[in-house]
Amino acid sequence: MLDKLFKPKSIAVVGASTNKEKIGNIILRNIISTFSGKIYPVNNKSDNVEGYKSYKSLKDINETVDLAIVAVPRDSVPDVIQDAIDSGTGAAIIITSGFKETDQHGAELEEKIKSMASGSGLRFLGPNTIGIITPSFNGTFAFSDNIKGGAALVAQSGGLGVYMLNWAQKTRTGISYFVSLGNQTDIKESDIFEFLANDVETKAIFSYLEGVSDGDAFLNTVPEVTKKKPLIFLKGGTGKSGTAAIKTHTGSVAGSVDIFKAAVRACGGIFVESLEDMLNIAKLVSSSESVSRDILVITNSGGHGVLTSDAIESYNLNEIEIPDRIKENLKKVLPDQSVPRNPLDLSGDADSERYKGAIELTKDLDCTKLVIVQSLPMVSCTDVARAMIRYRGKSLVGVTMGLDEDAASRILESAYIPAFKFPEDAVKAIKYMTDRMEPVRKIRIPQPVSEAWKIVSGKSYIRDFEALKIMELYGIKTPRYGIAMDAETAQKVADDIGYPVVMKISGDEPLHKTEMNGVYLNVERDMVKDVFNRLNYKRVLIEEQLNGAEIFIGGIKDPVFGHTVVAGIGGIYVEVLKRLAYALSPVSEEEAEYLLNESNISKIITARKRNYDKNSIIRAISNVSRMIVDLNISQLDINPLIVNETGAYAVDVRMII
Amino acid sequence: MLDKLFKPKSIAVVGASTNKEKIGNIILRNIISTFSGKIYPVNNKSDNVEGYKSYKSLKDINETVDLAIVAVPRDSVPDVIQDAIDSGTGAAIIITSGFKETDQHGAELEEKIKSMASGSGLRFLGPNTIGIITPSFNGTFAFSDNIKGGAALVAQSGGLGVYMLNWAQKTRTGISYFVSLGNQTDIKESDIFEFLANDVETKAIFSYLEGVSDGDAFLNTVPEVTKKKPLIFLKGGTGKSGTAAIKTHTGSVAGSVDIFKAAVRACGGIFVESLEDMLNIAKLVSSSESVSRDILVITNSGGHGVLTSDAIESYNLNEIEIPDRIKENLKKVLPDQSVPRNPLDLSGDADSERYKGAIELTKDLDCTKLVIVQSLPMVSCTDVARAMIRYRGKSLVGVTMGLDEDAASRILESAYIPAFKFPEDAVKAIKYMTDRMEPVRKIRIPQPVSEAWKIVSGKSYIRDFEALKIMELYGIKTPRYGIAMDAETAQKVADDIGYPVVMKISGDEPLHKTEMNGVYLNVERDMVKDVFNRLNYKRVLIEEQLNGAEIFIGGIKDPVFGHTVVAGIGGIYVEVLKRLAYALSPVSEEEAEYLLNESNISKIITARKRNYDKNSIIRAISNVSRMIVDLNISQLDINPLIVNETGAYAVDVRMII
Repeated sequence: MLDKLFKPKSIAVVGASTNKEKIGNIILRNIISTFSGKIYPVNNKSDNVEGYKSYKSLKDINETVDLAIVAVPRDSVPDVIQDAIDSGTGAAIIITSGFKETDQHGAELEEKIKSMASGSGLRFLGPNTIGIITPSFNGTFAFSDNIKGGAALVAQSGGLGVYMLNWAQKTRTGISYFVSLGNQTDIKESDIFEFLANDVETKAIFSYLEGVSDGDAFLNTVPEVTKKKPLIFLKGGTGKSGTAAIKTHTGSVAGSVDIFKAAVRACGGIFVESLEDMLNIAKLVSSSESVSRDILVITNSGGHGVLTSDAIESYNLNEIEIPDRIKENLKKVLPDQSVPRNPLDLSGDADSERYKGAIELTKDLDCTKLVIVQSLPMVSCTDVARAMIRYRGKSLVGVTMGLDEDAASRILESAYIPAFKFPEDAVKAIKYMTDRMEPVRKIRIPQPVSEAWKIVSGKSYIRDFEALKIMELYGIKTPRYGIAMDAETAQKVADDIGYPVVMKISGDEPLHKTEMNGVYLNVERDMVKDVFNRLNYKRVLIEEQLNGAEIFIGGIKDPVFGHTVVAGIGGIYVEVLKRLAYALSPVSEEEAEYLLNESNISKIITARKRNYDKNSIIRAISNVSRMIVDLNISQLDINPLIVNETGAYAVDVRMII
Repeated sequence: MLDKLFKPKSIAVVGASTNKEKIGNIILRNIISTFSGKIYPVNNKSDNVEGYKSYKSLKDINETVDLAIVAVPRDSVPDVIQDAIDSGTGAAIIITSGFKETDQHGAELEEKIKSMASGSGLRFLGPNTIGIITPSFNGTFAFSDNIKGGAALVAQSGGLGVYMLNWAQKTRTGISYFVSLGNQTDIKESDIFEFLANDVETKAIFSYLEGVSDGDAFLNTVPEVTKKKPLIFLKGGTGKSGTAAIKTHTGSVAGSVDIFKAAVRACGGIFVESLEDMLNIAKLVSSSESVSRDILVITNSGGHGVLTSDAIESYNLNEIEIPDRIKENLKKVLPDQSVPRNPLDLSGDADSERYKGAIELTKDLDCTKLVIVQSLPMVSCTDVARAMIRYRGKSLVGVTMGLDEDAASRILESAYIPAFKFPEDAVKAIKYMTDRMEPVRKIRIPQPVSEAWKIVSGKSYIRDFEALKIMELYGIKTPRYGIAMDAETAQKVADDIGYPVVMKISGDEPLHKTEMNGVYLNVERDMVKDVFNRLNYKRVLIEEQLNGAEIFIGGIKDPVFGHTVVAGIGGIYVEVLKRLAYALSPVSEEEAEYLLNESNISKIITARKRNYDKNSIIRAISNVSRMIVDLNISQLDINPLIVNETGAYAVDVRMII
């Protein structure tokens, strides 16, 4: 579909200036120096640019151009797009900036070109992009001497895109495609991911996004991509002020980073925290070595061994136990007084033979071998690198430290063995690679329980006792409960429930019950009427008082990714801890379990020998994830869901449609 | 005191082999190539080593040697030490390994040399060290071409020490002293810190420690050091398996990393999480620029601006608001459509003149100016670096990204302006530098309240009702309480207290009351006798039932750093959240407030418009910190301390002396 963009046979550069400092001129020169197809400068002032015959307009060219790269002032862009449509141009890259990221006039211009292109057959990238680089041409105004290879780079920000190119060049990471997304007015990140997923040159995709333009497309496309190759996401705008900076930068709206993370996780992608993390993962994906969570550390520096152990533990990876049989053999390689254990400290006087011996003896162990070498008078990094490359394919990862570390990295990398400069970076990259989940496509087909649908239809706020009813309809337990509009009825309802009870005000709108002193716990028989009168509210909800741990389960409808479930420790701790875990609807049981671990719920239901019903929470999360889609709920708070040995009970529910 | 070690006039190398691959030979050659004083090889096999006359023993040398560097097999070390003592040698460095870090025989040898040297006048570094480097000689077996400068490097691990040397060389960071601590049998980290604090060449001290050998010396020395210069700590062995790795590595016992952090904080040091963090701080401390928490970001890449904003927010630093007056002026520098705001995006077509204009206009703002440049066709990193150096001293920090970043770093660093390669690293380094606390010396003079002393003396476990009494004696409120040995008394005690009450078993030994079903809440008048009988325990503690937030305050006696206070959210959450904050006794009110913020206590007492008595918790922490010293308490758990609008009440106390 994007073949005219990525594999054109002819390229026109519109706005190809004769001034060598202008972007249009730089792009033309980049095209000339890389592209072997037909090249058409378009320039309304000159007949010849950089030795090529120049045309006044796309319409003057006597063939249909596959790709037009547009670098004209913003107010001229609509005319150029009209020319492109009229002349049947296949695709366009609009380099020009000054659109919705800038001001109202720019936003209007952007809408205009969008509606012009819509249905015309013309697809375009941008505006506000620095362009693309393919194996056949450099269609950007950045210089690039990148070598060809398997890494595709996709960046929403031009500056970061150039950064990624520079980095690839410095680290000799070969690239397949580079795409600066720009404002994504027509072609969006998912279109690009889809193309790259099917491209045979591309082995892994590295992306920097600030916002996602189309959540549904993302959720449909990304799982298909990650089944084929690793897809790594760095997101800008994770903080409040970062979000503000984005608005002036690409005009896109950044959603919640937690929900973005949940989407990436469900789709089988890798979410990284920083540029450095992304660069470190690149080392692993461009290598021939497969890594697992089980790690054996081999080092000639005890201190590095200690720090590496710390990192392995803090990332929840596993240091393997060396089998006794291999320990015995290792004793022959190690100095007399050394104990063979993990981390395997070869000692500061180790030479490359000792390294080789240790690798030889452990090469068939089913684990990642993290080989760390600190260059010392007895050994250099390059010695060890040369010893390592014979064992390529044995899950080796190198960490080279010392003055010859660059030379050693080069030896390793040319043999497709990853090489790091800090052990912590290597461990973190392994964690990222092995934390990936199986990609899941989130398919949401509302199938509301009809009785629940009747309760919610036509309403925006669902009253608490009705919300409790909906919980029951969706298989979530509730405490025994009833409502009362007068003290006599309250006494009767409470007697039926049994004591003690909880009594709380029940409004027709959302209320902050606790802050309004609208909740009484531990109400005994002789207190019911008194409490009813003290509450002094038209309707009172009376519930069986339950003991157990307080859990929070919520649901929201994210503007980008749609219905999302949130879980955490409940009660007041929701606001205090701010440690919530997110998953997109529908939530599988495996994902629900992940939420319990992420949010510490697992710990609170097992602490102090508690044996609270974990499966009931998992079922509740799964049911909530269906319910919010079925009933199109925009906000749901179950706080608390009380869980004990007998199950999980929704005690207080706030529901907004 | 350590002048013979650090500033010797003569050096003997004992074990100076003629074999160029042996450590003793490498050390001798290193000494020869760097030292201008007298050099004496000691070697029992040869008369001449590396062109120097060789001696059979230290005693054969016809002058008193200042420093002996010892590299002989471990079993020969005691003899050499005896020779050194006999001949009046000033100091020794014992390079040899194989002591307590290895096996029992090694530990015995180490004890032997320790007791030999004790009181003899001979001070020694090591064993199991790679040696020291001073401005006058290289007394290690590592190669070093380091330039001279202000960074002192102190490493417990030899491998990490060499790593730090290599790194200093690569980054052109000049060093004053390098010390490999080894097993610290005689000379300890605090001795070294003290020497370096008073050394005029040393501007900052970078240390890697696995354990602290003498906590008292640390707490006495480090605050004096940090008043004079920055002292940075990286600790190995922060995880469980890292701790295990240490034991085989240097034989030292790693204490709790949380308590180590608390000690560093109180002493005004900087605790870093990783090697990379330490290296980044080095850039700041070796520069002329002072940095503050208020940051202005200037960039030519919106994407980098977004990521930097995210980092500033996540590290709790502050993005300044640009004053309106300056905004007006900036409009003249920026392109037409750009809005002057922080981060200041100069746009991708910015040249160095635009950078210069922006820096000129903001140079007098009282904030850190973080100048980020992504090399683009319109600007290179070196252009911007040259523009920046005119503004040296204006709190500039550079981040250079692109193919000429190294050249640009060099331009900046030669002007003493720090230069980073990732904006996140720059922000993190600023955070470390500005998070330092005023150093405090922890002076602990027990002055027990005599009535409390009477209760505890001679006991190991203090019964709960007595512990409550001690709380009162130390100014910490308790709920009304009493004890009962029979149901009748229980009723009477509860009547006096008022209802509802809490009833719990009260043992003569520590009990897990909750897990033993030994606690009843909400006990009303008609239930007291029944509950007493159900508890079925010889003694029952009856307490007024209080409402409020549950806080945990604990006290422990750390084997290295002594009495320490721990605080966090209480109840079962202590085990669930594991988010506790630590401070060494005595705890000032400022530090107590820090604990409240670190542990989320601040949030729980203000959530949902709560207005709980914060000062009462601060006082309780401060009082506990005195109490545990006064009474030499080895373990104290106040869980919960219930806090509400009226104060903080110790409800359940477990105290072990």
